[in-house]
Amino acid sequence: MVLGNGTKRLPEGVSDIHANDLEIKESLIQKLQLLYRSYGYRQVQTPIFEYYDLFLEINGTIDREKMVKLVDRDGKILVLRPDATIPIARMVATFDKKEDSYFKVSYFTNVFRMNDDKQSITNRERTQAGIELFGNNSSEADVEVITLAIQSLKRLGIVDFKIELGQANYFKELMIRSAVSVEQEGEIRKRIEQKNVSELKQILDTTNIEAAYKEVILSMPLLYGNPTEVIQQAESLALNNKMKEELRHLEEVYNKLVEAGFEEYLSIDLGMINDLNYYTGIIFQGYIKNYGKPIVIGGRYDQLTKQFGSELPATGFGFYLDDVLDVIKKNTNQATFVNQTEAFVLFSENDRKAALRLADRLRENQLIVETDVIPIEDADVFIKELKRRGIETIITIQNQQFICVNKNDEQVVYNRSEDLLKGLLL
Amino acid sequence: MVLGNGTKRLPEGVSDIHANDLEIKESLIQKLQLLYRSYGYRQVQTPIFEYYDLFLEINGTIDREKMVKLVDRDGKILVLRPDATIPIARMVATFDKKEDSYFKVSYFTNVFRMNDDKQSITNRERTQAGIELFGNNSSEADVEVITLAIQSLKRLGIVDFKIELGQANYFKELMIRSAVSVEQEGEIRKRIEQKNVSELKQILDTTNIEAAYKEVILSMPLLYGNPTEVIQQAESLALNNKMKEELRHLEEVYNKLVEAGFEEYLSIDLGMINDLNYYTGIIFQGYIKNYGKPIVIGGRYDQLTKQFGSELPATGFGFYLDDVLDVIKKNTNQATFVNQTEAFVLFSENDRKAALRLADRLRENQLIVETDVIPIEDADVFIKELKRRGIETIITIQNQQFICVNKNDEQVVYNRSEDLLKGLLL
Repeated sequence: MVLGNGTKRLPEGVSDIHANDLEIKESLIQKLQLLYRSYGYRQVQTPIFEYYDLFLEINGTIDREKMVKLVDRDGKILVLRPDATIPIARMVATFDKKEDSYFKVSYFTNVFRMNDDKQSITNRERTQAGIELFGNNSSEADVEVITLAIQSLKRLGIVDFKIELGQANYFKELMIRSAVSVEQEGEIRKRIEQKNVSELKQILDTTNIEAAYKEVILSMPLLYGNPTEVIQQAESLALNNKMKEELRHLEEVYNKLVEAGFEEYLSIDLGMINDLNYYTGIIFQGYIKNYGKPIVIGGRYDQLTKQFGSELPATGFGFYLDDVLDVIKKNTNQATFVNQTEAFVLFSENDRKAALRLADRLRENQLIVETDVIPIEDADVFIKELKRRGIETIITIQNQQFICVNKNDEQVVYNRSEDLLKGLLL
Repeated sequence: MVLGNGTKRLPEGVSDIHANDLEIKESLIQKLQLLYRSYGYRQVQTPIFEYYDLFLEINGTIDREKMVKLVDRDGKILVLRPDATIPIARMVATFDKKEDSYFKVSYFTNVFRMNDDKQSITNRERTQAGIELFGNNSSEADVEVITLAIQSLKRLGIVDFKIELGQANYFKELMIRSAVSVEQEGEIRKRIEQKNVSELKQILDTTNIEAAYKEVILSMPLLYGNPTEVIQQAESLALNNKMKEELRHLEEVYNKLVEAGFEEYLSIDLGMINDLNYYTGIIFQGYIKNYGKPIVIGGRYDQLTKQFGSELPATGFGFYLDDVLDVIKKNTNQATFVNQTEAFVLFSENDRKAALRLADRLRENQLIVETDVIPIEDADVFIKELKRRGIETIITIQNQQFICVNKNDEQVVYNRSEDLLKGLLL
């Protein structure tokens, strides 16, 4: 039975990753692995299946409709890892701890969501890369995590990017003082995020929030831009010491990052309120120029491990690696699979051992090498074909000599494989 | 709400991978990536979701009961990738082709099965590493693939292993000539695989198979061991030219592998018949000494891409990487998360920039470095604590000098960061 074209046989929202793209993706991962390791972060991996309950019981988590669910044989509902951070917090809660323990972990993992909006299904399988720093609630930890977000982008060769800093607690305190309902808070939050001042005003008009609070809420969508000015303005709007304190903490982190030389990458947006409302302090999002979506999202979430019986403050971030790949990758014809072979060794059955040993030695020297056995009297035909395919170096063994031909038809004869290696690798 | 101990919150059949194990696993993957690349194989990745249909329509595939299924929003049944090879064949069928095109692909991917046997649930998420060579039906291709299975094990540092070679067609031809039913073939196959001669005899007694064929079938469980002898014996048993031809092909591949110096790793077992009956030629399984399960399974499957509208003969193998890890990994206390930090830079706020620059330069030189800001007058207390934690090098910046202390309390003072770098990296 013929099943027809392979690509049409794939479910929506997923795709094959072809060799060119995968090589770029793997090189991005490797660069980040080295970076995070050099700062003392160690990589961990949680399983693909988690209990649905885990994500239901956590306050302020991923949209349950979007999780990919299945039923286990015992009737319990499982989900495919919808998020990287919550499972890692579950895992870290099991680590042996002393009073001053802290844990620096990194991850490179796929997350799964049924992102089915009205128009289209977007990626259901996405790769996230990130770090989490558990057990340190100092501003120094916030600074390190944001520094690593910046270093990550630089390490990936991205120059034109901005990290927007926010402070979840300034808004949270404002909401507490305003005594709004959960529903009202949701509506307000949405309009602030959208910077939709007119709708925000309409909503506020329907509430009994005190006028002074209304004024601050209404200003929030505009609290972004030049950091010094934004902080000054927010300070003048702050209605109590708690709000001022949260701002001072943001200012401290910002100043430390400036001191470290990162001013050009930073801006502040107090109207940025992330989806996941488990954040409890400084939050941030990174944007690449001319790319509409945030590429990295992070912040402090000091309450999460409590829900697993542990008491570790935490801060971290996650990169959307496929989006980074979108920005970086060259346009290639996906269906064209190009061999990258650099050298080809042709040999007759009698010279098998010598030929394979030579090929192995070339491979040890980082060359990509293929081999094939041929009737040596037909060598010219095979060499011609390999030249046509653009193979840089074609080696045949004839009369115990190594004959090297390149695609420009230049030929060198070596008596010993050592000489060939030297000649080729120079 | 406290959710209790994290490990108990995991579904059966999956587990967290802690840092020590993950580092070993990543290093295994990296070694194999380099090896496969050096032979001209390029890595590809298929998505986690595939249509259930894809695996139903393929002749002789994975047990459908064991697949992890879910329903898409359009009602179609999806499965989580139950196997690496079939999706790759689907993908390769979409590649641009010329008449003589061949494709060497490698993969490192997870496969998912509900392996729920009566006693226990074994791993539902397993990592497979492997290669597939499409478009080459020569014995040279079989030799290359088996060579790479051997090279893989050697590259991973495993010495005591065997690759058992078999020939799917010898048995298949025998079954065709015996004119058995599918059910009978299944029963016979099972007993041969188990080397259960007495039950095999009982089953054969209930059939109308010709006596001459019965005799050969009954010998099959014993056709293993010394390759030359096994092939001779099988040749004397062979009932027609087709069976002899298949043996000659096996012998040719075996001889080429011996010629290449791999004799010590090889044995032959004609009674080895793999689960997946899409194999159409030489098949093989690799075993590590004192490890009960096959660690690598491979062979030729020339009919698979036909089912996707393509016509590419193929051969390849898949490693069970988690089993390799089981063999290799050291016993560690999983719940102990050990920091691997090699150097720690302590600094006061005034020296932030110089301190961070120094830390970055140490990191560029492959050191794992942490930093922290402290009141510099308390440096001694912090240094003592870091020594206790076993940090090899502790650096403080005081009066524009770099003071280096190691865990044995030896102290060196540098005036310039360049001198410190030289001193430390020597």
